[in-house]
Amino acid sequence: MKIGFVGLGSMGAAIAMNLVESGHEVHVFNRTPARAEPLRAAGAHVAASPAHAAESADVVFTMVADDAAHAAVTFGEAGIAGALRPGALHISMSTISVAAAQDQATRYREAGLAFVSAPVFGRPDAAAARKLFIMAAGEDAHLTVAVPLLEQLGQSVGIVGTDPSQANLVKLIGNFMLSAIIETLGEACAVAGKAGIDPMRLVELLTSANFNAPPYKIYGSLIASQQFQPPGFSLPLGQKDNRLMLVAAEALGVPMPLASLVRDRFLTLRSQGIGAAHDWSAVALCALSDAGMSKPAHLRT
Amino acid sequence: MKIGFVGLGSMGAAIAMNLVESGHEVHVFNRTPARAEPLRAAGAHVAASPAHAAESADVVFTMVADDAAHAAVTFGEAGIAGALRPGALHISMSTISVAAAQDQATRYREAGLAFVSAPVFGRPDAAAARKLFIMAAGEDAHLTVAVPLLEQLGQSVGIVGTDPSQANLVKLIGNFMLSAIIETLGEACAVAGKAGIDPMRLVELLTSANFNAPPYKIYGSLIASQQFQPPGFSLPLGQKDNRLMLVAAEALGVPMPLASLVRDRFLTLRSQGIGAAHDWSAVALCALSDAGMSKPAHLRT
Amino acid sequence: MKIGFVGLGSMGAAIAMNLVESGHEVHVFNRTPARAEPLRAAGAHVAASPAHAAESADVVFTMVADDAAHAAVTFGEAGIAGALRPGALHISMSTISVAAAQDQATRYREAGLAFVSAPVFGRPDAAAARKLFIMAAGEDAHLTVAVPLLEQLGQSVGIVGTDPSQANLVKLIGNFMLSAIIETLGEACAVAGKAGIDPMRLVELLTSANFNAPPYKIYGSLIASQQFQPPGFSLPLGQKDNRLMLVAAEALGVPMPLASLVRDRFLTLRSQGIGAAHDWSAVALCALSDAGMSKPAHLRT
Amino acid sequence: MKIGFVGLGSMGAAIAMNLVESGHEVHVFNRTPARAEPLRAAGAHVAASPAHAAESADVVFTMVADDAAHAAVTFGEAGIAGALRPGALHISMSTISVAAAQDQATRYREAGLAFVSAPVFGRPDAAAARKLFIMAAGEDAHLTVAVPLLEQLGQSVGIVGTDPSQANLVKLIGNFMLSAIIETLGEACAVAGKAGIDPMRLVELLTSANFNAPPYKIYGSLIASQQFQPPGFSLPLGQKDNRLMLVAAEALGVPMPLASLVRDRFLTLRSQGIGAAHDWSAVALCALSDAGMSKPAHLRT
Repeated sequence: MKIGFVGLGSMGAAIAMNLVESGHEVHVFNRTPARAEPLRAAGAHVAASPAHAAESADVVFTMVADDAAHAAVTFGEAGIAGALRPGALHISMSTISVAAAQDQATRYREAGLAFVSAPVFGRPDAAAARKLFIMAAGEDAHLTVAVPLLEQLGQSVGIVGTDPSQANLVKLIGNFMLSAIIETLGEACAVAGKAGIDPMRLVELLTSANFNAPPYKIYGSLIASQQFQPPGFSLPLGQKDNRLMLVAAEALGVPMPLASLVRDRFLTLRSQGIGAAHDWSAVALCALSDAGMSKPAHLRT
Repeated sequence: MKIGFVGLGSMGAAIAMNLVESGHEVHVFNRTPARAEPLRAAGAHVAASPAHAAESADVVFTMVADDAAHAAVTFGEAGIAGALRPGALHISMSTISVAAAQDQATRYREAGLAFVSAPVFGRPDAAAARKLFIMAAGEDAHLTVAVPLLEQLGQSVGIVGTDPSQANLVKLIGNFMLSAIIETLGEACAVAGKAGIDPMRLVELLTSANFNAPPYKIYGSLIASQQFQPPGFSLPLGQKDNRLMLVAAEALGVPMPLASLVRDRFLTLRSQGIGAAHDWSAVALCALSDAGMSKPAHLRT
Repeated sequence: MKIGFVGLGSMGAAIAMNLVESGHEVHVFNRTPARAEPLRAAGAHVAASPAHAAESADVVFTMVADDAAHAAVTFGEAGIAGALRPGALHISMSTISVAAAQDQATRYREAGLAFVSAPVFGRPDAAAARKLFIMAAGEDAHLTVAVPLLEQLGQSVGIVGTDPSQANLVKLIGNFMLSAIIETLGEACAVAGKAGIDPMRLVELLTSANFNAPPYKIYGSLIASQQFQPPGFSLPLGQKDNRLMLVAAEALGVPMPLASLVRDRFLTLRSQGIGAAHDWSAVALCALSDAGMSKPAHLRT
Repeated sequence: MKIGFVGLGSMGAAIAMNLVESGHEVHVFNRTPARAEPLRAAGAHVAASPAHAAESADVVFTMVADDAAHAAVTFGEAGIAGALRPGALHISMSTISVAAAQDQATRYREAGLAFVSAPVFGRPDAAAARKLFIMAAGEDAHLTVAVPLLEQLGQSVGIVGTDPSQANLVKLIGNFMLSAIIETLGEACAVAGKAGIDPMRLVELLTSANFNAPPYKIYGSLIASQQFQPPGFSLPLGQKDNRLMLVAAEALGVPMPLASLVRDRFLTLRSQGIGAAHDWSAVALCALSDAGMSKPAHLRT
């Protein structure tokens, strides 16, 4: 299949490489061209713009950082929407806002273009290993094309519904749930530590019992050891997703006090100088610091 | 081994039965005598008081509802502490307060009695199936006796430390973490539902991805379907453990804003008439009701 | 002085009338023309557009509902900015966002136009009685013109600083502080009422002691009697200001957990069907309802 | 009138002195005898125990630090309750728990003793100047005796009801409302300060407008200048009252999320080493510190 791929960050590059290795003809584009070189070496074509990547493709994937980048590559100058052939499919894997996905769905429908939202759970190593959990939503006819491709890229593809933005909402909900685990572990490790129980031992005990899901293990280890660098998923990206969750919930009329609590944690950390160099699990630093179990974030070295 | 067992609620009865079936000589006591009859039929001896259950035992287990019941059977009239032989071991499996466990540890040490705290994670069906996760703490010499017995009763025994009350704290932390999952799922299902995503589908999607720990599955299903009756673990018991968690954290100087949020949920539900007839996962009703996704608790039928 | 006045809601109409009565030549505009008739009867000129109201004025006032309305009358078609004479002054009394004020300050400076932000505290009756508390910010030369005029319209004019948007921030902070009083009174009346103390008696006792500021008296009486209709300041307007406060705080990197709590109260009420027909003091209904002291908002009649 | 007075802390000493100066025969007792000397010099009799202060009195006042001290001087060895003449009146001005007042009311009624709760709002200087706001509750016959005396000690006496503990609840509610003002001002000063508005200027602007109650002025000035030493009302005492408020609210079934927020602030500060040397307005340090507007409490010098 002839595929365009726009956005070669650590996630996008790993996914695009898998598409190349699966034998597709892949035309890649990245704003910073150097990141396209490993793909070129593997057999991909390097396009000069999103439009060039899209113009002859059956399917175009995008995996970019935020709404602004998504709007730029989709509807900006030399963007995808203006170049796609009638009937061609755009699969957006980015974690963008519900509103942005709704807007694109409307515009694509009016333009006779196909659109599937397919955000993912998993870090770059999972992307490389085709172990992503993918949430997909879109019209049935579009999913019929998208799902077989997505199944080549992850360990499961969950169908959320016919409205593409629903997949984005589920992704935001998932990240909200991860942030809740981080906050929970922060408070748990603080109380354990002050009672003389090694937080790492606490995490071992609990993840050997009922709390055996991967996030408890991964974040529990980071939080118990207060190892928030280097970032696996950076704090500003986590803050962005928290913001998108709260905006979506507000539009739906849903109070989310736990998400609001996490929101304030992010703001506190940012005001203390914690940013892109830290993993978002540093949210747990607030609970640890408030309990006197850690220096405040900005005073750690 | 000669074993006393005090407290034959749904958890205690299942555990005591397993001890009988493992071939121990078990002397049981329960405040309401009728609950001892199935044990008697299986070969247990029925004692007339905690003291009688304890007086010739090598090990006495207790599994009672709260601090008051624990104090009554341990230090009250015809209680265990006054009857135990020197060197005999008391294993407390109840979810009691950290302070109560600390007090008992001090008094037993002074009296030359052995004490291990061994609270459990798991519901009555898990107790019956010897699938409990058991957290144990106590002096090494006491654990040497306790652990082989406990291993007959659960799927794992985690050693927390040498201070018995630390096991109680870990148990409270575990229940706090479960309550955090319940609140998280309440907010998640509210936002999904108002976006037109069936909450049950949301739970399926997420528990098929990273959120694959049993609590997400069990509570996710209850919350998505708003089925909070009959109780597996009743709301007032959940509220009691939340209170014990906050008291322990306050004594340690640890703010736990997420536990405070859950505390207010319990108070709201109790003021709306929700109580022992409901499972503690009804905490999620608050988020659902605030979003207009459910009638408030007291107006449901 | 020759004055333009745009926006004749209940606040704007009262202020404009005072300007007419003070002897100024006032050219008024309102989107719904009928609201201008009482002003015409009092001697004002009725303009056909914001531009017409502004074109020959020394000073133009605006008092409109939100950022969108402000942008429309200022920078929209036939807007003020395109019609103002060089050196003429625009005094914005609307509660708009900090960002909108910052944007206007930049654009007016570039265009050689004068801009003072002067939002007010007080309800329509206070506006009519020239009892408003006015917060003003702008360059000194602009304040020199604005302050004497503003002093004709309120009981005090506080100078915030030289950056117009700072007055908007102070206004948002003031409304945040009012919302905190409302939440406080809701919780206080709930606990008093359940202890058998008439909430109205509680309010009398406290406002006769240290809590003798007008907001405690006004909102205390409304909340104790659960009289939230008709609105003095409507719930959606209060929600809008809460949102603007949180957006401004987020931009500044300031967590405001109390404002976040109030935010969730607004969302809860909106999801229960409470809206423009209710006063924003209905925020207190959440605390009352959670305590079982009131029916939830949507079930009251 | 023959009066006993137990508890000569800074509040009690000032009140007792006023009673002496009003011409009453006052028998004082304080655990630390040296504090009684200024009263002796002014004409008071110094008693050797609470019982001695009470035994021939028509009315006994108590003003002590907490429930434990209150129980000791009332029901302990050589306590008031065992010494009071039949029909004599005990006026408790201490901020004790609702439960303690309820317990005393029951025991005094059974013993044929009179009991009025009369906690106060005001600091030592207000006590000395007879400017206290006093909340009184008790049976009508007891209030008939108490109120004329209390009117000699403050600027107003508010009658709460016939159940003494209701006055204690109103006192706790009042302190809750003060703590809400402190938190509000902390968040307000943080956001103003980061926007370049001097927090002291913010406080001036707002207290010159609608927020003109004394607590806004007093605490606003302390918080804007971050002057939390020496204490007017010490942080641990504020924390104690917050705890009593939450306990009373929990017993009544009332969630108070704003009080819970303040509770966590106290815990954070205590874990950072802030204690009796600081005023309770230091609660605002949390908001200031989270915004990066102050060093965390324990790192200030």
